[in-house]
Amino acid sequence: MVDPRTSVINERLARISRILAVSSGKGGVGKSVVATTLALTLAHRGCKVGLFDLDFTSPSTHIILGTPDAQPKEEKGLVPPTVKGLVYMSLVYFVGNKPAPLRGSDVSNALIELLSVTQWGTLDFLVIDMPPGIGDVILDILRLIKRTEFLIVTTSSLLAFETVKKQLTLLCELKMPIIGVIENMKMNQTNRIQTESKKLGLKYLVGIPLDQAVEDSIGNETSLLNTAIGKKIQQVADNVILGEKREH
Amino acid sequence: MVDPRTSVINERLARISRILAVSSGKGGVGKSVVATTLALTLAHRGCKVGLFDLDFTSPSTHIILGTPDAQPKEEKGLVPPTVKGLVYMSLVYFVGNKPAPLRGSDVSNALIELLSVTQWGTLDFLVIDMPPGIGDVILDILRLIKRTEFLIVTTSSLLAFETVKKQLTLLCELKMPIIGVIENMKMNQTNRIQTESKKLGLKYLVGIPLDQAVEDSIGNETSLLNTAIGKKIQQVADNVILGEKREH
Repeated sequence: MVDPRTSVINERLARISRILAVSSGKGGVGKSVVATTLALTLAHRGCKVGLFDLDFTSPSTHIILGTPDAQPKEEKGLVPPTVKGLVYMSLVYFVGNKPAPLRGSDVSNALIELLSVTQWGTLDFLVIDMPPGIGDVILDILRLIKRTEFLIVTTSSLLAFETVKKQLTLLCELKMPIIGVIENMKMNQTNRIQTESKKLGLKYLVGIPLDQAVEDSIGNETSLLNTAIGKKIQQVADNVILGEKREH
Repeated sequence: MVDPRTSVINERLARISRILAVSSGKGGVGKSVVATTLALTLAHRGCKVGLFDLDFTSPSTHIILGTPDAQPKEEKGLVPPTVKGLVYMSLVYFVGNKPAPLRGSDVSNALIELLSVTQWGTLDFLVIDMPPGIGDVILDILRLIKRTEFLIVTTSSLLAFETVKKQLTLLCELKMPIIGVIENMKMNQTNRIQTESKKLGLKYLVGIPLDQAVEDSIGNETSLLNTAIGKKIQQVADNVILGEKREH
């Protein structure tokens, strides 16, 4: 059976120049903070930016942005609110802060629904905060949005990277564009992640030291951009993302 | 349609005294290290212990244990290998170290298959390493193994705990037994997790400081039990888990 919504999705995303999925095989690596900081940075540089929280496991960009009251509006679809300069949409608008026990098929259905009703309008960038693992969301994104570019976040931990590597292997096999690897919460001086990234033929973008100030910057975008993670992500945005854009 | 395997599951688990699920709404909080350390500790105390890795998002207990070669055997079902004194079973035996892109329905099916074929034999404890989030695995475990007791792992981070709280709320609503909350990678001196746990009517078991030695103890159970996490989990095992057992 063909889901009529899937044909609408390309139309909804037609006026978005680039779609960046911030992803990690592993949870708890700081992916949501990276996605939020990247979106804020690109907006500060004058781009029109959307942020789409698809982390069904633990949606948290609304907490990082500090947006308790913003809500989407119904108008021939859903018009996302503008939050701290970002066109913002999250699963959290549908489930609230209650637990959302969702089976994979429900997740898939909610994702397709969100993709087919959300009116993003014209955007330079849509930054997607992806859930951990290789489950329904990433499989649907790969199927439905073929031009997604991936930014991979890992920590320095061997355990984290072993899991991240599985996702990377899948993305490489499917020939999905991968912008590069971000090493977050770096707590040692080894070059292991750098070496492993090169082995996989991937660009190592940046190593971000563990910065406890991040925890106190939750909800405050100005101080977030001044943390170690904020400063390093600004480098990536300027040198890699916007640099790449100019080359296109 | 009734799945005939579900009736077999209770039989397979009949000779296990207690089933402990180490769980967290959030990924990357050290859940797999806690689960492995707890299983090893209980085995060192003379109990017969199984360890069951159901973290489909990022199976990693086999790396923590350092068990490259162990394999289950087919014999009227699957007989798990004994690894470092533990009766050990993991999804990784089925997918190897390749990426396992699994939709929720596949995850559910693999879980039911594993539960219905694995011959655990007689055990004092079965420790389960759960995947993050509130998805198919936890919904199936709640449905299929009613006597599961939960140990909840969180970090000190507000973002992590907001997600963990959702899973806790669900478990409380379903009146599932929760042994208590373990605060891992504690990097500050606040009592926030302690206070929040009490608010939910839950026992705060222990705060475990961030210990970088854990990373170097991967694959070596003796040095793992000597890290901060190893020592604190031994306290929990002796005072809470085995203490509770004696009270029964």
